[in-house]
Amino acid sequence: MRYQKPKGTADILPGESEKWQFVEETARMLFADYRYREIRTPMFENYEVFSRTSGDTSDIVTKEMYDFDDKGDRHIALRPEGTAGVVRAFIENKLYGPEHQKPVKVFYMGPMFRYERPQSGRQRQFNQIGVEAFGSDEPSLDVEVIAMAMDLLKHFGISDLKVALNTLGDTESRDAYRKALIDYLEPHFDELSADSKQRLHKNPLRVLDSKDANDQKIVADAPQILEYLTDNAKKHFDQVKSLLDSLGIKYEVDPEIVRGLDYYNHTIFEIMANSKSLGSGYTTICAGGRYNGLVEELGGPEVSGIGFGLGVERLLLLMESEGVQFPNLNQLDAYVVGIGSDTDAASLQVVQALRANGFSADRDYLARKPKAQFKSADKLGADYTLTIGNQELADRTIHVKQMQTGTEETVSIEDVKNDFGAVIDKHFNK
Amino acid sequence: MRYQKPKGTADILPGESEKWQFVEETARMLFADYRYREIRTPMFENYEVFSRTSGDTSDIVTKEMYDFDDKGDRHIALRPEGTAGVVRAFIENKLYGPEHQKPVKVFYMGPMFRYERPQSGRQRQFNQIGVEAFGSDEPSLDVEVIAMAMDLLKHFGISDLKVALNTLGDTESRDAYRKALIDYLEPHFDELSADSKQRLHKNPLRVLDSKDANDQKIVADAPQILEYLTDNAKKHFDQVKSLLDSLGIKYEVDPEIVRGLDYYNHTIFEIMANSKSLGSGYTTICAGGRYNGLVEELGGPEVSGIGFGLGVERLLLLMESEGVQFPNLNQLDAYVVGIGSDTDAASLQVVQALRANGFSADRDYLARKPKAQFKSADKLGADYTLTIGNQELADRTIHVKQMQTGTEETVSIEDVKNDFGAVIDKHFNK
Repeated sequence: MRYQKPKGTADILPGESEKWQFVEETARMLFADYRYREIRTPMFENYEVFSRTSGDTSDIVTKEMYDFDDKGDRHIALRPEGTAGVVRAFIENKLYGPEHQKPVKVFYMGPMFRYERPQSGRQRQFNQIGVEAFGSDEPSLDVEVIAMAMDLLKHFGISDLKVALNTLGDTESRDAYRKALIDYLEPHFDELSADSKQRLHKNPLRVLDSKDANDQKIVADAPQILEYLTDNAKKHFDQVKSLLDSLGIKYEVDPEIVRGLDYYNHTIFEIMANSKSLGSGYTTICAGGRYNGLVEELGGPEVSGIGFGLGVERLLLLMESEGVQFPNLNQLDAYVVGIGSDTDAASLQVVQALRANGFSADRDYLARKPKAQFKSADKLGADYTLTIGNQELADRTIHVKQMQTGTEETVSIEDVKNDFGAVIDKHFNK
Repeated sequence: MRYQKPKGTADILPGESEKWQFVEETARMLFADYRYREIRTPMFENYEVFSRTSGDTSDIVTKEMYDFDDKGDRHIALRPEGTAGVVRAFIENKLYGPEHQKPVKVFYMGPMFRYERPQSGRQRQFNQIGVEAFGSDEPSLDVEVIAMAMDLLKHFGISDLKVALNTLGDTESRDAYRKALIDYLEPHFDELSADSKQRLHKNPLRVLDSKDANDQKIVADAPQILEYLTDNAKKHFDQVKSLLDSLGIKYEVDPEIVRGLDYYNHTIFEIMANSKSLGSGYTTICAGGRYNGLVEELGGPEVSGIGFGLGVERLLLLMESEGVQFPNLNQLDAYVVGIGSDTDAASLQVVQALRANGFSADRDYLARKPKAQFKSADKLGADYTLTIGNQELADRTIHVKQMQTGTEETVSIEDVKNDFGAVIDKHFNK
C-alpha cells in the first residue's frame, strides 16, 4: 500500500526549498534592519484565542477553522493566522512591561492551517510571514510598517506594486459609521444575501466585503467611513498620508477596503501586485492594519498594535511569474573521485577536510566505476574535480581539475586537506 | 479573561529566538557543505504513516501519538518525528527515480508533536533537526552521516562528545538474534515487566531497551547481536569502524543500543554529551541509524536509507550550560533622534534610507522628548546616534555621534541618506 500526504498539504522538495530559504532569509535580514525580532508561537492554541480575535462572524471562525478536541477534551485549533497567537504570547509573557522598549516589534514566519473545502483549491496547510508592533499610536509607526512591507516586496524582486489605503477610524468614528451603514442597509434587507443578512447587525462593515454581485450593487451607494471620522481619527489618517508622501510611497485611498477580520481600526492597507499569475489586474499580496483593541480583547492591558501578513505560496507564484532569479545556494565546490576501493578512506578524508574548511564537497557512495563518478561531478556542476587513484595514494598526491577551464594539476594531498583555498589561488587563480 | 498557551507548548521570544536562528543557520550551512538539501513535509500525516513506520509496539505509537479525527473523519496525527514523513514524501514524489543522483540527501528542521502526559515534563510541541540519505548501502555513507553529526555538534560549540556505535545487522542476522533472544528470555517470562512481557514475542529487541530495573538485570546476561552477525553484516560493520578510524572519530561499540524505533538495521549510533544540564554522565544528544527496509514498508521500492535526528530544545540547554557564546545578530547601527514634531518626516526619511542601504536603524515612535530618545539610543546599544533638530532641518544637516568614542560631527543629511558607510569612513574611521 502507498501512502499519500493529507489532502490540502504539500511537500516542499529540494529544488523548491531553496526558494523558501531565500525568501525567509531575505525577510529575516530586512526585519533585522527594521529592528523586528522573531517570535515563535505554538502551531495550535486554545480555540477561543482565535474565535475571540477573529470575530464570531468571520469566515475563518465560521467556516475554515482547523479545530479538533484533543485527548484531554480541550477544544484546540491549528492556528489559522499569526496575529492571535502573537497577541496571546505578548500578553502571557508580559511583553508590555516597562523593561521592554516600545514599540515591541516582532515578526513570525511559518505554517498556518485552515480546514478548507477541497474544492476551494486552497491549501489546508500554507505559510505566512508577518510582523506585529505593539505600544505606539503614532502615525509614523503605521508608515514604517507599510514602508517595510513595500521594501520587503522590492527585496523579493517585485516592482509593479500599488498601496491601497483606508482608515476605519477610532471607536467613535467606527460606531457612528456602523450606525449610518445599518440605517442605509436596513431598507435593502430583503435583497441582501443570506451571509449579509446575518452580518448586517452583528458587523455591518463585513457586508461591504461581500462577494455577492447583488450585495455589491447595493453597497456601491452606501455611505463611506471617511465621512464619519472624528477629528482625531482624521488627523491620524492625514499624518499617515503625509508621511507616506514624504517617503515617496504612492498609495490610493480606497474606502472599500475593510479587511476580513473584525479587529482592525485606524489605518488598514493592502499591497497589490499586477500579475497574471494571481488573477487579472491588481490583486492583494500583503495586507495589514491597526488593531488597537485586540490586546485588551484577549485580556491584556490597553496597548495598541499594528501589523501585516503575507502568504508565502502566493508570493512564490508571483516571484516566479515575474521571472525573479533565485540565487543558486547550492553550488558544489569540489567532487572527489576515488579510483579503486583502496582509495575509499583517503577520498572520505579529503571530502571531510574540504567540508571542515567550509567548502561544499561530495563523493561517490555507490562504489561506482570512475567513469560514472566523473559523470556525477559534471552533472552536479562541480567547480573542481579531485581524483585519487593508487598512484596518487602512494605519492600522497591528488589530481585537481578546474572544470570550467580544463586546467589540471597534481598537488600534495596534505595541501588540499589543509588549505584548498591556497591550492586554488596558487594553481588556478593566476 | 486571560488566555494561556496550550499545555506542553512554549513561546520562543525575542532574545531566545536569535539562538534558534543561529542553530538553524549553522545547520543549514553545514548541511549545504555536505550536500544535504532541505525537505519540508506537512505538520501532520495520515495516522498510518507513523504507526506503520514506528512499529506497533513503540512508545510513540502506543502512548505518545498526538492524533485526532479531522472534520472529514480522517485519522490524522501531528508528526511525532521527522523520518516517516520524509520517507512518505520520498516515495510519493518518486525521488528514487533515475533522474535523481543517489544517494538522495535531505535535511529537515521544525516542530514535532507528542501527546505526552503533563507529568512527564516533556513538551507536546518540540523541535528536531535531522537528515536522511536514501539509495546507498555503502559503509562510507554511514560514516559520512556520523561524521556530519559530530561536525554539526562541534559547530554548535560542543566538544565533550562520545560516539556509541552498534549494529543490528541485516535481516538474517536480526532474525537469528531475535530467535536467540526469545530463547533466552522465555524462561524468565514471569519475572519480566508488563511492557516487556508484551514485547517479548512481538519485538524482543525492545526488551533490551527496558527502563525497568529488574528487566535490566535479566537482560545483562542476554546474548549479544554481535555474535549473530552474518559475514556480510560483519563486513559492513568492520568497514564502518575502519573508516571512522581513518577520520580520527573516536567511538565505543555498545551492544546495548537498540534504539526505540523498530525500523533500524545495520549501523545505529548515539552521540552523547557529558553535561550536567542533561543528567549525570554522558547522555544522548543525537541518534540515528540505517533503516534499509523502511521505504518498502511504506509501499516504495527497495531503497536503503540512513539518517539521524537531534532535539533542538535539549541542544540549546546543552549549549547554554557549556557557555557557548551566541553571536549578537541584533546590533543596532544607528538610532535617529528627532527634536520637535517638525522633524518627524525627515527622521523617518533618514531611518528608511539607512535601512535601504543595509544598516539596522531605529527611531522613536512614541513622540517622546529628546532626552528619552537619547536614553533609548544608549539602551539599545546603537553604534551611532543621529540627531535632527530645527536648525539641522533648515541647514539640511544631521548631527552624528559615534557612541563608543564620543566623537561628534555635523554632516550633510543627503550624504547620510545616500551613503552612510562613506560618512563613517570619512569622519569616524580615521
